[in-house]
Amino acid sequence: MAQIDELLRKNELYAREFNGGSLSSIPRRKVAIISCMDARLDLSKILGLENGDAHIIRNAGGIITEDVIRSLLISQRLLKTEEIMVIHHTDCGMLKFNENDLKDRIQQETGIRPQFELGAISNLEDDVRKSIFKIVSNPFIPRKDRVRGFIYDVKTGRIKEVI
Amino acid sequence: MAQIDELLRKNELYAREFNGGSLSSIPRRKVAIISCMDARLDLSKILGLENGDAHIIRNAGGIITEDVIRSLLISQRLLKTEEIMVIHHTDCGMLKFNENDLKDRIQQETGIRPQFELGAISNLEDDVRKSIFKIVSNPFIPRKDRVRGFIYDVKTGRIKEVI
Repeated sequence: MAQIDELLRKNELYAREFNGGSLSSIPRRKVAIISCMDARLDLSKILGLENGDAHIIRNAGGIITEDVIRSLLISQRLLKTEEIMVIHHTDCGMLKFNENDLKDRIQQETGIRPQFELGAISNLEDDVRKSIFKIVSNPFIPRKDRVRGFIYDVKTGRIKEVI
Repeated sequence: MAQIDELLRKNELYAREFNGGSLSSIPRRKVAIISCMDARLDLSKILGLENGDAHIIRNAGGIITEDVIRSLLISQRLLKTEEIMVIHHTDCGMLKFNENDLKDRIQQETGIRPQFELGAISNLEDDVRKSIFKIVSNPFIPRKDRVRGFIYDVKTGRIKEVI
C-alpha cells in the first residue's frame, strides 16, 4: 500500500475525535515560525504549541527566500502575527552538499541547470544571523522588533538561541 | 512576557523527555507534504505522523512556488522521498483577499509594489489541481507517479482527495 493511503486512514481516526472546529485563522499566540522541512522537527511538540497557536512556514533549510517573505507578509498584514522565530537545526541536509556540484549533477541528468539557488548552507549560526538580517531589512514586513533566531539540536531536542 | 519566551520554556520540558536522538534525516515513510502555514493545521496529528516520518513544506496557501520546487528537489534527490501530498484547507486566508488590492495597499504603505505574486486563490479544488500539474510538469522533480492532492476541512478535521 502507498504510504499516503496509510496516512489517510490515520486521518480518519483524527477526524473522529476532532474538536477544533471553532478555531480562528488568526494565530492565538501571534507568532510565525520559519523552519526546515526536516522530518525530525515536529514543531508543535518541540515548542508545546496547541492547535491554532502559530503560523508555521517550512522549506528545505528554513532559509529566507522570497516565498518566505511573501508568507510573513501575509502572516503579519492579514493574520496579525507580531513575533518571528527562525529555527535551523543540527545535521541539516543543506549542510551536506555543494551548491555547484548539485547543480552540475541536475544539469547532467535533466539537461537543464536550475536558475534558482538550491540553498546550501556552510555554517548554521551564520545562516541564522543572515536570515534575521533578511527579515528585518525587508520593507514588506511591518513588525520587526521581535525577530529571533535559534538552532534546534536533533540529538537532544533542545533549542538554543543564536545571539 | 513575549510569546517566544514561553515557547522556549515549553521546549525545556520537551527536551527533558526527548528520545528521538538517533533518527535519520531520511524520512521513514518517504513522503513529502506541502501545505499551508495556517495555525490550525497540526499536520503530524492530522496524518498520525511519528517523529522522522515525512518532510513537511509549508507556506502561505500551500501553493507551489519556485521555493517549493527547490524543497521537493532536495527532498527527492538528496533525501529519497517518493510520494507527494498537496494539502489545501477550507477557510484559507488566501481565499480572502484580492491580489491587486493587497498590492495596492502595500504600495501605499511602503512606497514599493511587491514584484512577486502574493498567491491569492479563488477556488481551492482548482488550485489543488493546478498545484499537482506544476509538480508533475517540473523537470527537476524525478518521481511523479505518486503525487496526490487533498483539501483539509478545518471544521471537521477530515481530509478529502481532489480528483
